[in-house]
Parts: sequence; C-alpha cells; structure tokens
Amino acid sequence: MTNIGLEQLQTPCVLVDHTRLIRNIKWAQDKANAHHVRLRPHIKTHKCLEIARLQLAEGAVGVTASKTDEALVFINSGIKSVTVAYPIISQAKLDSLLAASATHRTDLRLLLDSITGVEALALAAERHKTTISVFVKIDVGLHRCGLLEDDPNLTTIIHRIQSDTRLRFIGLLSHAGNSYSAKCAGDVLQIAREECRILGRVKSRIEGLGVEVTEVSVGATPTTIVSDVYEGITEIRPGNYVFMDMTPLRLGLIDVDRISLSVLATVISVNQNYMIIDAGTKVLSSDLGAHGTGAGVGYGMAYAVEDYETRRHPLSVVKLSEEHGFLQRNGVFLPIGSQVRVIPNHACPVANLTDTLVVLSDAGKFETWKVDARGCVL
Amino acid sequence: MTNIGLEQLQTPCVLVDHTRLIRNIKWAQDKANAHHVRLRPHIKTHKCLEIARLQLAEGAVGVTASKTDEALVFINSGIKSVTVAYPIISQAKLDSLLAASATHRTDLRLLLDSITGVEALALAAERHKTTISVFVKIDVGLHRCGLLEDDPNLTTIIHRIQSDTRLRFIGLLSHAGNSYSAKCAGDVLQIAREECRILGRVKSRIEGLGVEVTEVSVGATPTTIVSDVYEGITEIRPGNYVFMDMTPLRLGLIDVDRISLSVLATVISVNQNYMIIDAGTKVLSSDLGAHGTGAGVGYGMAYAVEDYETRRHPLSVVKLSEEHGFLQRNGVFLPIGSQVRVIPNHACPVANLTDTLVVLSDAGKFETWKVDARGCVL
Repeated sequence: MTNIGLEQLQTPCVLVDHTRLIRNIKWAQDKANAHHVRLRPHIKTHKCLEIARLQLAEGAVGVTASKTDEALVFINSGIKSVTVAYPIISQAKLDSLLAASATHRTDLRLLLDSITGVEALALAAERHKTTISVFVKIDVGLHRCGLLEDDPNLTTIIHRIQSDTRLRFIGLLSHAGNSYSAKCAGDVLQIAREECRILGRVKSRIEGLGVEVTEVSVGATPTTIVSDVYEGITEIRPGNYVFMDMTPLRLGLIDVDRISLSVLATVISVNQNYMIIDAGTKVLSSDLGAHGTGAGVGYGMAYAVEDYETRRHPLSVVKLSEEHGFLQRNGVFLPIGSQVRVIPNHACPVANLTDTLVVLSDAGKFETWKVDARGCVL
Repeated sequence: MTNIGLEQLQTPCVLVDHTRLIRNIKWAQDKANAHHVRLRPHIKTHKCLEIARLQLAEGAVGVTASKTDEALVFINSGIKSVTVAYPIISQAKLDSLLAASATHRTDLRLLLDSITGVEALALAAERHKTTISVFVKIDVGLHRCGLLEDDPNLTTIIHRIQSDTRLRFIGLLSHAGNSYSAKCAGDVLQIAREECRILGRVKSRIEGLGVEVTEVSVGATPTTIVSDVYEGITEIRPGNYVFMDMTPLRLGLIDVDRISLSVLATVISVNQNYMIIDAGTKVLSSDLGAHGTGAGVGYGMAYAVEDYETRRHPLSVVKLSEEHGFLQRNGVFLPIGSQVRVIPNHACPVANLTDTLVVLSDAGKFETWKVDARGCVL
C-alpha cells in the first residue's frame, strides 16, 4: 500500500475503487445466496487473479472464461472449477485445456452447440483418455451462439453426447447478452424472465428424452441486477458487475456510485471546442457498450478529479483517437495538466488494455494489481 | 520460415502478406524520394522492430511514435532518430525519454503546443543538462492538438523557446487526421494542399520573427497517398500505409490488393442470420476507423480463405462481441470450422491487440514477427 495522491500517478492508468469493488462482489454473492443459485463469475471483465480470489472467498463456486488462454491462466492458478463458456472446436485449444486441467485436477466444463462441437470434444476426450463435462448452449435472444429452443438438432445433439462414454452432459447454459441492448430496466426484466421460461421448456424437453439436466446456468450483469425469477436455475455467471460502467447506468439499472472502475487521464492540450486528454482507444477502447450496443453519446463520461465523487460538471468524451480523447468543453475549462477520471462505456475491454489496475482505498492509499490474463487473443 | 497451410494456424491470428508489405514500404519511400522529402514513418501502426528495420533499410530517416513507452522500445533498439509526435508534459515521461536517448545517443525530437509544454520541456532539459529539439505542433483541421495558424500564442511560444538555451526550435509539425473523415479522394487532396498552404504561412510568420524554420513535417496516410504538392515540406510521417485497411479503401484511395493485413478467424457457430467467427473486439477492436470515422458498414469485411485473393463473396462483419464476430450470411453459407480472413476497419489497433504477426510469403511459407511495442498504455 502506497499513500500518494493521484497527481503522482502516470497517466493514463486504470483505477479501481476498492470499497466499491468489494461491495459489488458481496452484492452478487448475496443475490445468488438469496435465490439459492451458485455464483460462477465471468473473469473476462477483470482477468485478475486477485479479484477472482476475492470472489471465491465470498462464495463463488469457480469461474467462467471465454478465451482459451484466459481460462488457462485461471486453471494454472489452481482454481478448482472453470467453465469455458465458448464453443471450442479446435483440437489444439482442447489439448491445452485438457492438459492443464489434468495437471491441476480442475473441474473443467465446456460447451457446444453443434454436432461438429460434439465430435471435436469426443475426439479430444478420447485422445486424452478423459471424460469431459458438457453444457449445451441455448440461444435466448442474442442470436450469437447456441441452439434455439425449437431447434430440431437439439435431440440429435443430446443423443450424440449421451452415446459417447467420454462426454458427460451436465446441462444448459445461456447468455442473455440481448439485455445490453434493452431500453430500460423493465425490458431487462422481461428478458430475464423469458430466459428462465425458455430454459425451463428446453429442460423439460430434454428430460422427456430420459436425460437428466443437472445444471441450468445463466448469466449477464443486466439480468443479474434485475431478475426476480430463478426457478429451475442452478447457477449465474455475471462478469461486468465487479466494475460496472456506463452501460448499466444508461439502462437505469444502477446508481453511479456502483461503478468501481475509472480511467485517470491528464489534459494535454486545449482548443476552442475541446480539452484533449491522454486517454484514447489504447486505454478506453472504442467500445460503445457490450455487443456493439451504446447510446451514441460518446466514449465515456469524464469528471475533473475533484468533481468525481459528486459527479458535478460531467464532460462527455465525444471522440477518440488512439492516444487522445476529446472532451467537449461545455462551458467547463480545465487547463493543461488537469487530471480527469473517465467512466468508460464498457469496463471489460479497458481491463484488457492495461497490465495493472491501480486499486484505491478510502484512506487514500493504493496498490497495483496485475491483470494476469490481459490481452489473450486465442 | 515454416511451410504449412493456414488451416494449421490457431485462430484468431493476425496475418501480413509479405509481398504487399514490402510493396507498400517501397511505395512510400519512392513517393518521398520523388518529392524530395524525408520519410519518418509512424510506428503506431505496426509497433514492430522488424518492420521498422525494413523501412529504415529502404531509406527512412528515423521513426515517429506517440506513446512514450512505444518510443522507448524503438529508442532502446538503437534507432538513431525518433520523433515523439505528442505534447508530453509529464516530467516522469520526459525523464525516461531523455535518459534512454542519452544512453543510445538518439536524435530525439519532441513537440509542444502550449506555454505549459515549453515549461515542461525546459525543466526536463535543465534537469538532464541536455538540449531538446522541439517542434511546434500546428492544427491544420483535425482540431485535436496544435496551434491554429492565427493563434496569438504562437509568437509568445516561439520567443519562449528561443529564449531558453536548452531548447532548440527545429520547425513545424502537423497531422491532417481530418483526411480520414473525408468523403472522397478529391476531398483528401484539398486537405493535403490546404495543410501545405497553412504551414507555408506559419513558416513565413515565424521567419518574419527572425527565427529559422528548418523542418516542416506532415503526415497521414490518406494525404500521403494523394498529395501532389510538397512545397516547403521537408518530411512526411505516414504510418498506416504499411498495412492499409478498410479506411483508405472506403475513401477510394487504394485498390484492395494494397491491403497487407488481415485477421484469420474460424466459423465456430452458425444460426439463421449469421455465421459466428472467433474474432471479436479482442483482436479486431471496435474501431470504425481512425479518429472515430467510419462508414457505418460494420467492423470489417470477411472472405472465405479461398475467396480472399479474388474478393468474391464479401461478408460484412456486422457486429462484434469481445470474442465473437457476426458475419451476415447474405446467401453465403460457411459451415462450422471454415476459415475466413477479415480486413479490419483500422489496422493499427489490431496490431496493438496481438503479440505476433504471422507473415506470409507468396510461396506459402510463413514466419512470426513480434509486435515489440504492443499494448503500451503510457
């Protein structure tokens, strides 16, 4: 713990408010406990072993990853249960996941949404002389990966999994990413309830085939915030909730003081219309929001450091170059050298662009935490 | 050099066609030579020592960087002349740049656009007992950093630099980044000519003060492609030209076969409307184009590997999640496991998201080059 002021930090850098981070971690665990579901946070948001350990200490049953190389960091750290919520068909990727899981005796859970996926997992399981726990991904409205509830291939896929002694069907998994493009909290609630109903129907359909559905795993931060129905659901996998960002704020799901991550930047030039800061896409990313959503109001909201807690004088980040951010002046003038804190549209890619998080305590101390699985492409 | 097919590469990965890369490098040097200006490429595009060495071998006089930590990689590699085209006001950053330049006897060139900038550089120069070569940045239309030509502070700043024995005024520097939001090649040409006229007028104004203007440095890939007037200009600093991307193509400045960088990806899921690939914002970025420009037609153009050279059956990347890209099916069906090559909107952030470039020769061989200055935040 070091005790210096923000003005001594080199900018841009990524700040995390420790108190808010801990509050968010406890909040999600409390919500899971209250609804009798397990929490398996997605680490794509923080990519940080220190934060994963806090989540596990609070009661999380394991973690979720999407990138193979991100998952490997968490498997190799000794975390005992890891779900890779991505349809992996590459034998090379399956080799590395299965080898690492064997070494660390990890409860590895994979998913698929196609016959090709079944064949890929069966082939890898046979080569590694192991058994793979398999989710089937269900599309609940994002229309990205997953089978629609009435997909005729569902039965074939379930039968094909069941017929392979090296594959163990454990249940259904969905991601209501469509909740990020909702217009308001009420819409998110409808999406969460519909997800629950769809999964209930698919579960019944599979049980009608005489196949047990042990797990029903859902997860997205917006639905986790608002959902009130968890019937039949066994597990939630939100990720973004540890940091939050402009997206749940824009959706009216949270107060601004739930947001724990911000980017510290410095005004390095001023012109008639803009104050130019040293935070561009190389630290903020160009994301308008998860899955390409966004309110079209820019690339984040900035505040002078002294206005950050009170949220006075918000300055929209209206444009970004790679190394520059444009703050609309709007009657506010911050001279060159002034520091600002920017709340990004989407916190996850921000953590992907930095090696370290600067974690601030309420007492004005800070320490740096490594973003262990930063920037994994594979 | 390894000789295997693309199907053996793990995806996503970033491919560079060696022949096109070399052709682009030669093209820019030939253009500079033809107009009797020096070429000092911006390394923000490739961040790769191997490519910088090719540029220098072809005749480049040095390199340009914007991030301090990117510049340090190139200074520490022994490149003898480095311009940091960014108004650095941080003493910590100036310390690291001046220390590395002293160690490697680098001809370091910095810029400023404010009295604060003059004071910061003067302070650092005094502390390091050195002389700093200084450009004054002129705003030629991007309205980001730089002084407008009629800015009343210009004279004060020039006098302030002249009065400090540790600062050596070397000339003017501009970046016509506004050319990226032009509508057509003709507009880009007008921007290039206007840049030349503005800098000529500022140069005369400064010379009228009895101050010599040795260097007039311009640079942006669009203006470099079309410009036909270099009167008074001594140096050009384009960066993107080594790779090119959808942006100069959209502006009608290049043919598609000038583009040397693409992202290799695999179809990992298929639904009614989309083929889903394993390249999302974690490798393509969310950039619509440099400086937030873009034609709003998506996040890049994809082709099945076998259609890449002929550019048949283009598939727009209509949406991105962090680990997924959505290809609009448009009557084309590529089954799960198919490989595609995606031309990104903006190549620079793509190279910032990968540790290695897979460089392909015409003979079907490939080797991997390190992106040495990948992901520098400071």
